[in-house]
Amino acid sequence: MKNIAVIMAGGSGERFWPLSRQAHPKQLLCLGNSGKTMLAEAIDRIRAQVDAADIYVQTMPHLLAPIRAADLGIPKENVIAEPCKRNTAGCLCYAAAHTLAKYNSDGSDLVLAILTADHRIGDQAGFQRTVATALATAANEAALVTIGVPPDHPATGFGYIQAAPSEGDATTSEELPTVHRVKRFQEKPDRATAASYLAAGNYFWNSGMFFWRLDQFRAAFSLADPAFSTAITQMKAAMQAGDDALVTQIFEGLKSISIDYALMEKAEHVLMVRATFPWEDVGSWAALDRARRPDAQGNVVEGDPVLVNTRNAIVCNHGKDMAVGVVGVENVVLVITDDAVLLVSKDHTEDVKQVVEELKRRNSPQL
Amino acid sequence: MKNIAVIMAGGSGERFWPLSRQAHPKQLLCLGNSGKTMLAEAIDRIRAQVDAADIYVQTMPHLLAPIRAADLGIPKENVIAEPCKRNTAGCLCYAAAHTLAKYNSDGSDLVLAILTADHRIGDQAGFQRTVATALATAANEAALVTIGVPPDHPATGFGYIQAAPSEGDATTSEELPTVHRVKRFQEKPDRATAASYLAAGNYFWNSGMFFWRLDQFRAAFSLADPAFSTAITQMKAAMQAGDDALVTQIFEGLKSISIDYALMEKAEHVLMVRATFPWEDVGSWAALDRARRPDAQGNVVEGDPVLVNTRNAIVCNHGKDMAVGVVGVENVVLVITDDAVLLVSKDHTEDVKQVVEELKRRNSPQL
Repeated sequence: MKNIAVIMAGGSGERFWPLSRQAHPKQLLCLGNSGKTMLAEAIDRIRAQVDAADIYVQTMPHLLAPIRAADLGIPKENVIAEPCKRNTAGCLCYAAAHTLAKYNSDGSDLVLAILTADHRIGDQAGFQRTVATALATAANEAALVTIGVPPDHPATGFGYIQAAPSEGDATTSEELPTVHRVKRFQEKPDRATAASYLAAGNYFWNSGMFFWRLDQFRAAFSLADPAFSTAITQMKAAMQAGDDALVTQIFEGLKSISIDYALMEKAEHVLMVRATFPWEDVGSWAALDRARRPDAQGNVVEGDPVLVNTRNAIVCNHGKDMAVGVVGVENVVLVITDDAVLLVSKDHTEDVKQVVEELKRRNSPQL
Repeated sequence: MKNIAVIMAGGSGERFWPLSRQAHPKQLLCLGNSGKTMLAEAIDRIRAQVDAADIYVQTMPHLLAPIRAADLGIPKENVIAEPCKRNTAGCLCYAAAHTLAKYNSDGSDLVLAILTADHRIGDQAGFQRTVATALATAANEAALVTIGVPPDHPATGFGYIQAAPSEGDATTSEELPTVHRVKRFQEKPDRATAASYLAAGNYFWNSGMFFWRLDQFRAAFSLADPAFSTAITQMKAAMQAGDDALVTQIFEGLKSISIDYALMEKAEHVLMVRATFPWEDVGSWAALDRARRPDAQGNVVEGDPVLVNTRNAIVCNHGKDMAVGVVGVENVVLVITDDAVLLVSKDHTEDVKQVVEELKRRNSPQL
């Protein structure tokens, strides 16, 4: 049995403007403490279980060049692009077809790990224990496997997984990545529902990471929605024939639907591995507080700005020869590059998208 | 009788960093609505009473070149520099000596108007009426004359002038620049004292503008502190002899003391003309609110930044190709140039000096 990893890196991360740009997405930013990009960190994490030659990054066409240009330690041709956006169901069918074609396999000897690059994972060893369990479960149980993260607050920004108790095990430890039957996938809840999930104790954040044998994946889709399993078979053949136009044509014909709706909620045998690592969404500037270690005044700084009477601020000076002074403010994010400046209250980091929208209207070169 | 004007422009205006720089002081910034620099506005204002050839700008040696380079409509050689800093008493003695030497006069035919460039004067005609009265009073009354501004709030940032009622006049109008005997000069008060001054009705802000016949000025100094009147005579002679080293030596020997302490509080015959124009200190970024017209959200913007959910902010983008986004903040000043960014709460604009101090310690090129 061979382990293959596909890291999803198609997002644009507009909420990280001005560091993220159309040709320099969030995945290529160094948002953690390691000095490495989010994508490089994701690749490093899976190297314990998967050879570099078998790690793929799947993105969008306009990001192929910048991601290939980044020094990620995997073959350049392992950076691949979906022809267009077709939500996660299309995305994962494309990954399946590409893997089946590349390894010329019926899938019974291949376990695919679908991973993400836009979360901070605090404990590398814990991640690797969890992933080892997920890979083994996918290989041995002939199940679709996902990772569920024990919530520590009633987050409304994630989908949830309602899990059954761990099989025959009353002594689960937080150290052990226990395996649970999935009862239901739940959409992003409102605050009250999220609080009830947290209180119930058997709801987990849907990490968006999946593990499956490719023959199982295709078989599950042939029951849930045969259009997708047919597309996998056809795209595999077209890829092996080198017929890119046909691949695109088939892919464009797919429904745009999430993998949760299209497959996971319908599939018979779905298991969840409980994560034994801390997992943080790095979805907006405010999340840098959690990804970095603030100083005694609560500030997170980069690029040597001068701070006076300033608290709980994030100040990132990425300008080459920029002097930056910050005086008497609290609870804001200030990001400087050589051609752009963003100032945003920590309570409004979602609204950075509105700045990006306006700059699009202006045909601004700073996108 | 000839009117001469000397505009004081020696300050560095560090509180306007990053627009003000060591070689580009506040006086050379366009802070009002006219599109002209503060210094150009000051020169324009006095042109009604003084010929361009008789208008001087007195500054510090390192600012000679940038001020001469600015197109101010006066002869380049009329931009002069004191050898070093010796407070306002030294400054005004230097101005006196330079004028006496240049016009080769004993001073009895010269009225000197000492003006400032760091205030916003809202009503040009009102200013000119007041100055005309001050010049005439200085010429005819053989008095040291100052301009006092009727306070409209209990400001603690200015010195005050305690004035006697206008002579024999119960019908003073706000339109008329009445002349008052000065009882006392008062230092910058605390808030309670400022409130009592405002309530009393006969206290005025000390504008720092002065008018005197040069023979009167020297004579008053020979009574108040003969060291200064001697220095005026000696510097005049040294200037006429072209002996710069001697001028510097005499000037450096002067006490560093304000003109209020050294002369105005001691002189016999001091008069105040009540200003008939609005007068605003433009001492820090927060003052731009008053110098410009904010939009409906209370924002003052320059350089087309993108503002989202932002109120009562000043956002000045002077970068050549800078995109600027501001989201969800209030009551701040954000100033951007091609090599520097300043973010400061409106309540802390005085502390911009601390940023400048730190940049000095770092030998930062952005000063």
